[in-house]
Amino acid sequence: MIRIAIIGMGLIGTALGISLRSADSKKDPMGEIEVIGYDANTDHLKEARARLAIDKMAPSLAEAVKGVHLVVLAVPALALRDVLATLAPCLEPGAVVTDVTSTKGQVTAWAQELLSANNPFVGGHPMAGREQSGPKAAVHDLFKGAVYCLCPNVNSPPESIALCEAMVERVGAKTYFIDPYEHDAYVAGISHMPFLLASLLVHVTSQASSWREMSALAAGGYRDTTRLASGDVTMHRDIIMTNAEAINRWIDVCIDELQGLKSEIAGGNQAAVQEYLQRTKQARDEWLKQKPGMRPGEAEYEDMGMGMVERPSLFGRRAGGRSS
Amino acid sequence: MIRIAIIGMGLIGTALGISLRSADSKKDPMGEIEVIGYDANTDHLKEARARLAIDKMAPSLAEAVKGVHLVVLAVPALALRDVLATLAPCLEPGAVVTDVTSTKGQVTAWAQELLSANNPFVGGHPMAGREQSGPKAAVHDLFKGAVYCLCPNVNSPPESIALCEAMVERVGAKTYFIDPYEHDAYVAGISHMPFLLASLLVHVTSQASSWREMSALAAGGYRDTTRLASGDVTMHRDIIMTNAEAINRWIDVCIDELQGLKSEIAGGNQAAVQEYLQRTKQARDEWLKQKPGMRPGEAEYEDMGMGMVERPSLFGRRAGGRSS
Repeated sequence: MIRIAIIGMGLIGTALGISLRSADSKKDPMGEIEVIGYDANTDHLKEARARLAIDKMAPSLAEAVKGVHLVVLAVPALALRDVLATLAPCLEPGAVVTDVTSTKGQVTAWAQELLSANNPFVGGHPMAGREQSGPKAAVHDLFKGAVYCLCPNVNSPPESIALCEAMVERVGAKTYFIDPYEHDAYVAGISHMPFLLASLLVHVTSQASSWREMSALAAGGYRDTTRLASGDVTMHRDIIMTNAEAINRWIDVCIDELQGLKSEIAGGNQAAVQEYLQRTKQARDEWLKQKPGMRPGEAEYEDMGMGMVERPSLFGRRAGGRSS
Repeated sequence: MIRIAIIGMGLIGTALGISLRSADSKKDPMGEIEVIGYDANTDHLKEARARLAIDKMAPSLAEAVKGVHLVVLAVPALALRDVLATLAPCLEPGAVVTDVTSTKGQVTAWAQELLSANNPFVGGHPMAGREQSGPKAAVHDLFKGAVYCLCPNVNSPPESIALCEAMVERVGAKTYFIDPYEHDAYVAGISHMPFLLASLLVHVTSQASSWREMSALAAGGYRDTTRLASGDVTMHRDIIMTNAEAINRWIDVCIDELQGLKSEIAGGNQAAVQEYLQRTKQARDEWLKQKPGMRPGEAEYEDMGMGMVERPSLFGRRAGGRSS
């Protein structure tokens, strides 16, 4: 049996527990599992248990990781350093540590600094979320079909990577292997700039003196473009602080573009504005058309030959060597 | 019977026809109507007829408005001047002209310049849309519950305003009276900046050298924040060109804000970033909580005493004087 501890019973931690536990253990290569949950907020912990996200509630961080093979850290990015420092001496030898936060460079560095060589760290980032936060917002299919980044480093033992990959498959997501720093540069553009621009739009409009009247006219376009501005404040703050450099490079690019666009508009350059809109519409429509199986990265994943056939024996070995 | 001509069988024109014709004429104060459609693109015109958006297809602009009480211009904003110039000599005396475009200052000026004093112009703007365009994208409930701006001027005869208002109610939308220039300043913020920022985000990311890899990680947040970038290019271009000044003022505000945010991030000012995100989350959540009946403008509308009771007699008069 594989024992998994989830630290942090927010949206992602709780949804992960629900997804892991609702999978069919007879069919899934991971087989029988036990999920232990911990959250400093006992209301969240109880809610997660009530939603069947975990088998057991742990009374402390140290208790949560006792006899555990895989520790999933689902806490805000800036809390990770303290959690890693507290956990490090309590981990079983060989226990694998992963996380679910949206930036991977900083946490990888902290793991390298704080964890023993016996405890491999494989950073993780499921590309899924909701604007609501907390355990009550967790849904069982949050990860279904989602891309799930895993960031092993050169020293990660293959079985630690395979264990994380098995977890990703069990929740219905697709593994995407990527370097932590490359990951941070990419997600700054396609994940962090979206919530930053959503917040920007809400900020500039809601601070305007005519907001009261203006807000009456705001409709579906405003709602959707700003959806991410209703997301978890702590999570977004931590993402910004741990990915500051990459985000600021993107802000510069946006400012440049806005200045260029502004002068085309002021100059009445209808053709340039049309071309700008045409090009972006085309780029987005092409992105939307990418079938899940056709996205870059997924083809590479298929080519890596890390198919399901290898796993039963792997977990057979692990289970024999570690539990029972 | 009220005869209505819809000029332009795109998304909005077709959806308007479908909504008008599918209402119950026995219960609606407007009573029996006939909808005549025209589009220079005959495929669009035939599609609109096939979708029961119109009773008759007109072979020309001039034919479309013959014997018509209300003309709805549903063409792109920059096409409006030519359409108004062509239509002006063909309109019945007293026929009311309205439009559905997203900017109201420019079209109001053109109407004043080109229409005879016999033909009142009441600009209109339904706050509803989809990112798909064309008659095939039209749905019957596009306007249900939507705010629908009407921009009469001081010279608009009350019955011309009442006729437009009756049309708005018939399609299930809520009238919001507003000055055309005030309208343009407001919608620049809550409607035009959203698609401009959506396009900006697609532009900067899709032009990046790592777009191919990056795009594999883009998920629901990217999809929703950029939804409007897949909208109709001509419509968006025309909106930008006819509302250039207001839009450029908003671009300046955004650039200022981005510069401020960038220096807070670079300075590691965690509290300032948190406060920024907190304030915008709160503003958006408050906006979402406004019940339809509680939005500013709707209360004023109730107070104007332009309830349904006045209408049957009004249309009785109109019908007697104009048709049969």
